[in-house]
Amino acid sequence: MSLDPARLAPMANAIRALSMDAVQAANSGHPGMPMGMADVATVLWSKFLKFDPSAPDWADRDRFVLSAGHGSMLIYSLLHLSGYAQPTMDDIRNFRQLGSPCAGHPENFLLPGVECTTGPLGQGLAMAVGMAIAERHLNASFGDDLVDHKTWVIAGDGCLMEGINHEAIGIAGHLKLGRMNVLWDDNNITIDGGTDLSTSEDIKARYAATGWHVVECDGHDFADIERAMHEAVADTRPSLVACKTVIGKGAPNKQGTSATHGAPLGPEEISAARDVLGWDAAPFEVPEGILAAWRSTGAAGSEAHGAWASRLQNSVQKTEFERRMAGDLPESNATQAYISALIADPVKVATRKASEMALADINPRLPDTIGGSADLTGSNNTKAGGIEALTADNYGERYIYYGIREFGMAAAMNGMALHGGVIPYGGTFLVFTDYARGAVRLSALQQARVIYVMTHDSIGLGEDGPTHQPVEHVASLRAMPNLLVMRPADAVETAECWEIALQNKTRPTVLALTRQGLPQMRLEEADEMLSAKGGYRIASAKAKRKVVLVATGSELHVAAECAAKLEEQGIGADVVSMVCAELFEEQDDAYKADTLPAGALKVSIEAGTTFGWERYTGTDGINIGLDRFGASAPAGQLFEKFGFTAEAIVPQILNKLNG
Amino acid sequence: MSLDPARLAPMANAIRALSMDAVQAANSGHPGMPMGMADVATVLWSKFLKFDPSAPDWADRDRFVLSAGHGSMLIYSLLHLSGYAQPTMDDIRNFRQLGSPCAGHPENFLLPGVECTTGPLGQGLAMAVGMAIAERHLNASFGDDLVDHKTWVIAGDGCLMEGINHEAIGIAGHLKLGRMNVLWDDNNITIDGGTDLSTSEDIKARYAATGWHVVECDGHDFADIERAMHEAVADTRPSLVACKTVIGKGAPNKQGTSATHGAPLGPEEISAARDVLGWDAAPFEVPEGILAAWRSTGAAGSEAHGAWASRLQNSVQKTEFERRMAGDLPESNATQAYISALIADPVKVATRKASEMALADINPRLPDTIGGSADLTGSNNTKAGGIEALTADNYGERYIYYGIREFGMAAAMNGMALHGGVIPYGGTFLVFTDYARGAVRLSALQQARVIYVMTHDSIGLGEDGPTHQPVEHVASLRAMPNLLVMRPADAVETAECWEIALQNKTRPTVLALTRQGLPQMRLEEADEMLSAKGGYRIASAKAKRKVVLVATGSELHVAAECAAKLEEQGIGADVVSMVCAELFEEQDDAYKADTLPAGALKVSIEAGTTFGWERYTGTDGINIGLDRFGASAPAGQLFEKFGFTAEAIVPQILNKLNG
Repeated sequence: MSLDPARLAPMANAIRALSMDAVQAANSGHPGMPMGMADVATVLWSKFLKFDPSAPDWADRDRFVLSAGHGSMLIYSLLHLSGYAQPTMDDIRNFRQLGSPCAGHPENFLLPGVECTTGPLGQGLAMAVGMAIAERHLNASFGDDLVDHKTWVIAGDGCLMEGINHEAIGIAGHLKLGRMNVLWDDNNITIDGGTDLSTSEDIKARYAATGWHVVECDGHDFADIERAMHEAVADTRPSLVACKTVIGKGAPNKQGTSATHGAPLGPEEISAARDVLGWDAAPFEVPEGILAAWRSTGAAGSEAHGAWASRLQNSVQKTEFERRMAGDLPESNATQAYISALIADPVKVATRKASEMALADINPRLPDTIGGSADLTGSNNTKAGGIEALTADNYGERYIYYGIREFGMAAAMNGMALHGGVIPYGGTFLVFTDYARGAVRLSALQQARVIYVMTHDSIGLGEDGPTHQPVEHVASLRAMPNLLVMRPADAVETAECWEIALQNKTRPTVLALTRQGLPQMRLEEADEMLSAKGGYRIASAKAKRKVVLVATGSELHVAAECAAKLEEQGIGADVVSMVCAELFEEQDDAYKADTLPAGALKVSIEAGTTFGWERYTGTDGINIGLDRFGASAPAGQLFEKFGFTAEAIVPQILNKLNG
Repeated sequence: MSLDPARLAPMANAIRALSMDAVQAANSGHPGMPMGMADVATVLWSKFLKFDPSAPDWADRDRFVLSAGHGSMLIYSLLHLSGYAQPTMDDIRNFRQLGSPCAGHPENFLLPGVECTTGPLGQGLAMAVGMAIAERHLNASFGDDLVDHKTWVIAGDGCLMEGINHEAIGIAGHLKLGRMNVLWDDNNITIDGGTDLSTSEDIKARYAATGWHVVECDGHDFADIERAMHEAVADTRPSLVACKTVIGKGAPNKQGTSATHGAPLGPEEISAARDVLGWDAAPFEVPEGILAAWRSTGAAGSEAHGAWASRLQNSVQKTEFERRMAGDLPESNATQAYISALIADPVKVATRKASEMALADINPRLPDTIGGSADLTGSNNTKAGGIEALTADNYGERYIYYGIREFGMAAAMNGMALHGGVIPYGGTFLVFTDYARGAVRLSALQQARVIYVMTHDSIGLGEDGPTHQPVEHVASLRAMPNLLVMRPADAVETAECWEIALQNKTRPTVLALTRQGLPQMRLEEADEMLSAKGGYRIASAKAKRKVVLVATGSELHVAAECAAKLEEQGIGADVVSMVCAELFEEQDDAYKADTLPAGALKVSIEAGTTFGWERYTGTDGINIGLDRFGASAPAGQLFEKFGFTAEAIVPQILNKLNG
């Protein structure tokens, strides 16, 4: 049965009224998109989207992503009108005010029903790709009874123009994610003016060239929208629904122009719009009949939820499914056992290789992981533990060949983590965190458990030279809130870091790993995972302590060599491994003061920028680092050239002590 | 006259021999691409590319960009064989060794003839877009007599798969850069294996959809390559030449596989390849006849260069053209005059507005600038001083609507700066440096004068919330070598920063600018541009100095308010503006010690992460900052909530002084 336009029109106008009123009250925001896409969203919500307002976390709900996040009043309107507990009308009245969950852009951590944080353009759609992958993967594992939902996206021209769009739709097209449907707000307007200011692209042809199904509709004709959505759902490819819309639709003097995009319409224009829309309710009031129509949109989803809950109750996979979706790890001492084996039989390996060894231990016992690499599988050592390629023909497997798409990979991993049920990890060279940085930030902001396996973490990669040698990257990532940056020094620390990363449900982790082999530094059993402290004393001064050497990763053994030389001269020196500064910062003051005691000369050693190290060494310490770009040469020569040897460092320490 | 295949084949094989021998000697590198594209490159060099080996810096040379930079032995071979002074055969013999200009990836600062640094995939092609824009723009200014060249690119599947490719070709297609031709090494191989592991895209259809002309050829059939290049040159659109090639062509057992991509072929396979290729010269030797054929490839270009030089000599525009291409600024005291006017008549404006005012002063008197924005023109305030849109119909103008393409914009600006003759600047929100960071790094590495106008530089942007509020960005950019990060505090500092940025020919600059209005702090004339010191005392303690407040940008006036409150209590406090830490670091020790004197309590105030500030405040100072993500609310409330007020800061200082 087709939808009734007479019923839908006032429903859509409710979105328009709330959007223009909220933006006006805040004197800030974006009315154009919610008003332009109100009709499309109303059809989606009324007939296609599977959701239960009383259970925003229902595992088998359709995922809805507002990729054009500036149009946040659209999702706030939809959630409120359809009967979610939040946002309340007061929340909407306080749009963009301190404490309201109705933030300027939708934030997944503020409001159930907001699947992901959007606003940085292009990333919502790219995260949706990850959600759609997670859905198909879990479907393969748990069957149609438990996992059988779609992923819907509303995206604007900005989302489609960003580079990440190319990467995201390339992944989706290749993996034939047919249950993903993108509703493109095709309004020919960007902030600066008409799209013809900056683009001449045939977007539909581009999507078709990338393996997508493309269908068009009049975004203000309910029947036509419904037809197009039916076609999208029916096609086995991912679908782009080009919805021809008028931005700010309903604002008679401003609609169709960029004036409606990012500013309040103003009282006069709002008044004129109310006339055009036939909307005479007071601001922030929705007439009862219209509200009732909206409240009924969740009925089908509630019913489906009930049936699903019964199936889950009767499923033999119930416990495991619930564990997976809760994101809990199985109880296991396996990491400790693995570390004990390493201590019994030390290895000298690159930490990227140590990461592969850890994965070979983890992946067989933890079905949650989905690994991958942006076309550096053999370099990142990410394919381990018997996992095979996840493909369009076999969604049940656990390794994704992301192609040369670092940003797309990172965003897809965010989407997977937010979908739940899987723990994504993926690799590239550390230097190319620059390409993915927009998504790394959204991992951190969204509190998403994504594990970045970033290898070739310094000049130690050698001959590839400055373009491939990270210098500022570890520091620049340490500066980012809620991100664990770990630079392990050997196979034991690498295993601990993996375990810590997996245990952190609400924080992403960057593992910075070497290309080159490193001696094992941890040779004794410990009572606890020492890396969990973030920084810890790995060796204590024998002579009277005058120096504390603080190092990470591939420079920890250099620090130990410096300490040995100092001790030979009767100068006591501790060695501290600062494997994760963020975790060290969380320790209590006594622990920190004990680890980095006052009075001792602090020396940091890290083959990267010295920026940030004064936090631990003070202004009177020594920072051994690299405050310039690297060079192309064998790694050993570079470490020598740039002074990362005990021979180069110890004299500086002696000078300082004697100075 | 068509090229003679019998002459070309051994020329191409010389590239193959040098490439496999150099990679083998280095025991590191990428032989597959140079061997696969040797035939195409030989045709390009022999017939199409306009170059003069004796004058790599000739302004009207064709630009050649090896976007697939890992295949660096291709360009080293081409430059050596065709008779450039560098690289010598010894340089090639020392490929990837310390001190050789033949680095792992081509570096523009090591070797004339290398137009740009490549290796980070996709960016070479994207920089070429900027070069092609610069060419058309300068052609419009100086005419066909002086500027009339093409831009050629060799790109691989990786370059085309990266997101930036979408942005770059979108700009090129829209601006109808018909003199740009991309030779795509269509070999179906990536590092992880066949391209079908990760992509199903119809690349040719995508380029066509983006306004490009597409032509194909057999990349190992000289006549077919020549035909395709003729067609590319003839078409008025930018052209993609899909060259069907075999990676590692000539290595009989490994060609066509990813095994040839990134590792030496090994002595056995090299020996077999020599048999196949009929190449019996010793390693690093090129038979005389073949070398002579190569040396003749530059003859046509040398002749053209001579004719061009005569035209330049006779041109009335000679002086101005030479100034432009040398990158020198006209002599001018205009900035000083502009600043004096500000001091005479202070303004309270946002620094983004102050930047617009500075541009209104600069753009009319400096024809070199080409401005733009990634679809935030009205927010970045980048269109000023009467410049109008540079379009396909009017290349002579000076403002580019880049669209929602931050990375593409930044890379294009790199290409423009490297082309020479223009000074590009472009804007987006500071938070979206994350999207463009890969190109910002190449600005710094390549020593390119690119000016990033990054507005909305803190929580001060208010309601848009955490996705749009930079927190870690200023610090993360400060960590990058050779990048000037400036955060001016008022209109005077903003004008000084613009002038300093323009004067720095070999460094890019990031201007971090506020959305919100700021009081003018600089109210007195100075003998010099104080911002050029990077950090300077803007106010001296009146009472005995116990405190030094160090702040940047929008927090400088907060620091001054703190100082006033402290002075009321008889506590002397200096105020230091740290407008550009990189420049401050370059001052002598005496100046630095005078500015940040020992003994005083140092307090940093910046509405961003505290990471890195201990360099100036030590471990016993106070760092007022924001070590978490922001929130959505009006800016004033956020500054209060997060403690950036004198009321919140002064008590902390008093506590510390009394503690």
